[in-house]
Amino acid sequence: MPSLSNSPAWKQFSQAVLSSPSKPDALRIITAAQLEVDLTTQRSSKELARAAHALLEQQGFEQYRHDLFEGAKINWTENRAAWHTALRAATPPVAVAEAVLTERARLAKFVEEVNACNQYRNVVHLGIGGSDWGPRLAFDSLAGAGTRRTLRFASNVDAHAITAALEGLDAHDTLVIISSKSFTTTESLANAACAIDWLRANGVAYPLDHFAAVTANPQAARNFGINEERIFQFWDWVGGRYSLWSSIGLPIALGLGIEALNEMRAGAAEMDEHFLNAPIEQNAPVQMALSAVANRSVLGYGSFALCPYDARLGSLVPWLQQLEMESLGKATLRDGSTLDVPSSPVVWGMPGTDGQHTFFQWLHQDGKGAPVDFILCAVPDHRHTRHHRLLIANCLAQRAALLEGKSFEQSLKEVTKTEKDPEKAAVLARHHVHPGGRPSTLIVLPRLEARQLGALLALYEHKVFTEGVLWGINPFDQWGVEFGKRLAGDIERRLDALGSDPAVSPYDPSTAYWVRKLASR
Amino acid sequence: MPSLSNSPAWKQFSQAVLSSPSKPDALRIITAAQLEVDLTTQRSSKELARAAHALLEQQGFEQYRHDLFEGAKINWTENRAAWHTALRAATPPVAVAEAVLTERARLAKFVEEVNACNQYRNVVHLGIGGSDWGPRLAFDSLAGAGTRRTLRFASNVDAHAITAALEGLDAHDTLVIISSKSFTTTESLANAACAIDWLRANGVAYPLDHFAAVTANPQAARNFGINEERIFQFWDWVGGRYSLWSSIGLPIALGLGIEALNEMRAGAAEMDEHFLNAPIEQNAPVQMALSAVANRSVLGYGSFALCPYDARLGSLVPWLQQLEMESLGKATLRDGSTLDVPSSPVVWGMPGTDGQHTFFQWLHQDGKGAPVDFILCAVPDHRHTRHHRLLIANCLAQRAALLEGKSFEQSLKEVTKTEKDPEKAAVLARHHVHPGGRPSTLIVLPRLEARQLGALLALYEHKVFTEGVLWGINPFDQWGVEFGKRLAGDIERRLDALGSDPAVSPYDPSTAYWVRKLASR
Repeated sequence: MPSLSNSPAWKQFSQAVLSSPSKPDALRIITAAQLEVDLTTQRSSKELARAAHALLEQQGFEQYRHDLFEGAKINWTENRAAWHTALRAATPPVAVAEAVLTERARLAKFVEEVNACNQYRNVVHLGIGGSDWGPRLAFDSLAGAGTRRTLRFASNVDAHAITAALEGLDAHDTLVIISSKSFTTTESLANAACAIDWLRANGVAYPLDHFAAVTANPQAARNFGINEERIFQFWDWVGGRYSLWSSIGLPIALGLGIEALNEMRAGAAEMDEHFLNAPIEQNAPVQMALSAVANRSVLGYGSFALCPYDARLGSLVPWLQQLEMESLGKATLRDGSTLDVPSSPVVWGMPGTDGQHTFFQWLHQDGKGAPVDFILCAVPDHRHTRHHRLLIANCLAQRAALLEGKSFEQSLKEVTKTEKDPEKAAVLARHHVHPGGRPSTLIVLPRLEARQLGALLALYEHKVFTEGVLWGINPFDQWGVEFGKRLAGDIERRLDALGSDPAVSPYDPSTAYWVRKLASR
Repeated sequence: MPSLSNSPAWKQFSQAVLSSPSKPDALRIITAAQLEVDLTTQRSSKELARAAHALLEQQGFEQYRHDLFEGAKINWTENRAAWHTALRAATPPVAVAEAVLTERARLAKFVEEVNACNQYRNVVHLGIGGSDWGPRLAFDSLAGAGTRRTLRFASNVDAHAITAALEGLDAHDTLVIISSKSFTTTESLANAACAIDWLRANGVAYPLDHFAAVTANPQAARNFGINEERIFQFWDWVGGRYSLWSSIGLPIALGLGIEALNEMRAGAAEMDEHFLNAPIEQNAPVQMALSAVANRSVLGYGSFALCPYDARLGSLVPWLQQLEMESLGKATLRDGSTLDVPSSPVVWGMPGTDGQHTFFQWLHQDGKGAPVDFILCAVPDHRHTRHHRLLIANCLAQRAALLEGKSFEQSLKEVTKTEKDPEKAAVLARHHVHPGGRPSTLIVLPRLEARQLGALLALYEHKVFTEGVLWGINPFDQWGVEFGKRLAGDIERRLDALGSDPAVSPYDPSTAYWVRKLASR
C-alpha cells in the first residue's frame, strides 16, 4: 500500500487544492442543526469536490462513520468503542440504552432532590482536562442566563487553584464533585484531599457526605468513601474529551438546571443526525475537516486561530485545543507506519475583539499567517444594540481584510497623503501592505443557548473525527500523555527523598540539577 | 546588500544550529535579576556561540540596544522612540525625567488620597490590548497576596463583558478607569458609555466624577468630561504593549498597593541593567532570542508553547501573545524589502498541569511539535507542600520527556507485558514512541512576587526586541491593525443603514451576504 502522500486520491486532492482560487467567488454556506457554517473563503472548486470524494472513499470514511455510530471498536489501539453519540441520543442504541438511561435518570433525580431542599448553594468541581473543559465551557458560556448556584472549578495541581476555588464559600453549604474517568487522577485526588481538610476545618463533621463522584471506576470512588447514591458512572467507551455528554455534565445540571444539560445533548444529537445523513457536499463537519486538511497538509499552515466574537466563549479555545491536539497530535498509522504529511495544526485564539488588539497584527502581516475560525451569535443576550453592531462589524471586517488584503498601490495612495518624499513613501507603503488571500470559516449561531452550544461542540467533534479518518490516525487514544506521568512519579519520589544520591540520576544534566536544587528546599 | 538568508553571518548561524546536538550535555543556566534561565536543552555549541556573535554584529545589535535605552527613534516607521525603560528606571533619563517623575508622583498621590478616605471599594478597568493585559496579568498573578479592592476588567466590545464586570457592584463606591493611549479606542469608549448609564441608573448624580483616565491624549479625556486631576498621562514614545510601566499601572496600584507597582518597576529595571551590561554569552534575553530565531527560522518550528507551572500565571499567555505577535508579526524590512526567512512563531499555551491534560499529547507525539517555555516558582504562596512537589515534578518530567523521548525498543518492552502476539506488539509499540530531542527553556523564579514578575516581563520584552534586531524588523509598529479597523467602521455604517443598496457593496460575496442578513435584524 502506498503512503498517504503517494496515494492516488491524495495526489489528486493536493493538486486540486493548489489549483483552486484563493479568493473564491461563490457563496458556500451550510446549515447544520441551526448553525450556519460559511466556508466561502476556504479553497473550493468542482475538481476539488471530486477529489475530496475520492479521498474520503480511499480512506474509508463511510465505514468509519458507520462504525462510530454503531459502537464498533474504532479506538483500535485500545480496542474500544468511542460511543459518545450514544450518550446524547434521545433513544440510545440498544446495547447501551439501559445503562445510559439509568445514569441519566439517577443524575436527574439527584439534581431534583438537592434543588427541592435548596441544598448546596456552592459547588466545587474537581476534574482536569476532559473532565474539566466541557463543564467549564458550558458554565462560562451560559451562566449569564441565570445560575442556580455558585460554581467553582479547580483543576491544576498547583494548590493556588484549589485555595482560590474554596475561598469565601460556606463549607456547610458546599458540594464537592470529583470527576475522573480513572479515579486515579493525581490532580483531582490531591485537590479532593485539600477539600476534605477545608470542610473539616470549617466544622463539617463528615466531609465525605459533601462529596459526589463521576467516574468510570465506581469501585475506587466507593473505596474513597463516597456514598453509593452519589457515584455517577460512565464507561470505558466514553473518551475523556468526549465525556461532557455523560454524567460529567453534573455541574452543568446543578449550576444551570437539568434542562440546560438536556438541551446541550439535544443540540449535539441534532448535529449527529446532520453528520450521519447530510450529503458530503452539504455536510458541515466533513467540509470543515476537508478544509482543515487542505490548510494544514497542502497549503502548509501550521496552526489555526479560533476567534469567537463573543466574550462568553473564551473557554471554547482550551476546549478545542484539547479536542484537536489530544485527538490528532500523533503520527502513527494503523499499520504502525508513520504519517508522511504534516498533520494536526496548533489550535490557539481568543474572543474577538480582544484578539484584534492582541495578535491580529500577525494574522494580517506575518509572512504566512494562519486560517481563522470566526464564530458569531446573530442575537446577543444583552440590550446594547450598538455594541452588538460593532461586534458584528469587527468580525466581518477582519475576515474581509484577511481575504482581500491591501495592495501596494492602495497603501501608497494612503501613505502619500502624509509622506511627501516619494522615496520614503514607497518604502513606508511596503509596511502597510496586507498580502490577503487568507482563508477563514465563519460559524453563525442564532443565539448562544444550550442547544446551539451543544450543536457547536458536536460539529467540532465530528470535524476532528473526519480529520482522523483523512489522515489515517486514531483520534481516540492518547499514548503520549502516559510517559510524562510516569516520569513525574519518579521525579516526585526523588524530590521527596533527600537522601537519594543525585549522582545516580537517570536524567539529563539539567533535570538532575533541578531535582537536586529544588529538593533541598 | 544580500538578503538575510544570503548574508554570511546568517549562513554561518544556520549551519551552526543544524550541526549542534539536539541533546546537549552541558548545563547552561543564566541568572538575571534573580531569575534563573535554563537554556540547557536549546541548541548550543562553541561554533554556534561564535556564529551568534557574528549575526548580532551583522544586524547591528549593540547600536540598537544603545538606541533603545537612549531614547533614539528606533520605531522607524513612526519616527518615535520606544522608551519604556525610562518609565521604570529609578533615575529616568534627563530628557524625560521631569515628565516621568511628575506622573509617578501624581499617581502615587491619587492612590494615597483615595486610600486615606477609604474610597472606591471597586475599580472597573476599561482598556483593551496593551492597556489591558499588563494590569490584568499583574492582578491575576499577585492578587493572592492580599487585595485592597475588587478589581474588574472589561475589554471586549461584546457588551456581555461590561455587563458581567459591573454586575453586583455598588455604583456609589466604584471608580471607572478608561485606559486608552489614543483615547479613541472604540471598545473602551463604548464600554465607558455603558458605565455612565449604569452609574446614573444606580443613583450616581455625576457619573463622570467616578472616572479616571490614563492616556497619551489628555485633551480628549478632558473633552470627555473627566476631571483634570484624574487624568494621568503617558507619551507617544510609550508603545501600547509596553505601557504597563506608565500610569497604565494605576489599577495595580489601587488593587494591590503602590508598592506592588513600584516593585514591578524595580524588577524590570534590574532586568534592564542585566540586558544592557551582561556579556552576550551570559545575557538571558539575548540568548533566549537566539534560541527563538534558531527554532523558528532554522529548525522550522512554527510556534512555541508557554507553560507556566503556576495557576496564577494564566494571563501571561495572552500578554506574551500580544508582545510577541504584535511586535514580530510582520515581514517588511527597513529598506522596504521582504524578510526571506520564516519569523514570528505563534505563541500559545496554558498553565501546567492543565496543559498536560490538554495539548501535551501533541507536544510529545505530533510529527513536529513545538519548543516550550516552562516557568516555575521555587517557593509557592500556600502551604500544601505535596501539591508543590507534584507541580515541580510534573514540570521537570514533561521537560525531560520532551528531551529524552521514548525509543521503539523501550516501548516494545512495555507493550509486550500485556500484548503477547509479537506482531501486534510491534505495531502497538510504534504508537508509544516519543521522538524526543524537543527543545525547551526553563525559567525559575524564587517566588511569584511583584519584583520577580516585573523582571520576567522585561526579560521577554528584551527577548522580543532582540528578535526584531536579528530579523531586521521594527518591533514597535503595528500597521496591520489599522486596515481592519477602517473596514469595521465602514461595515458598521452599512449594518446600521438598512436602506443602503447591498448590490453596491464593495465587499466579497460572503461579507456582502452577512452584512445584508445581519443588518435586517
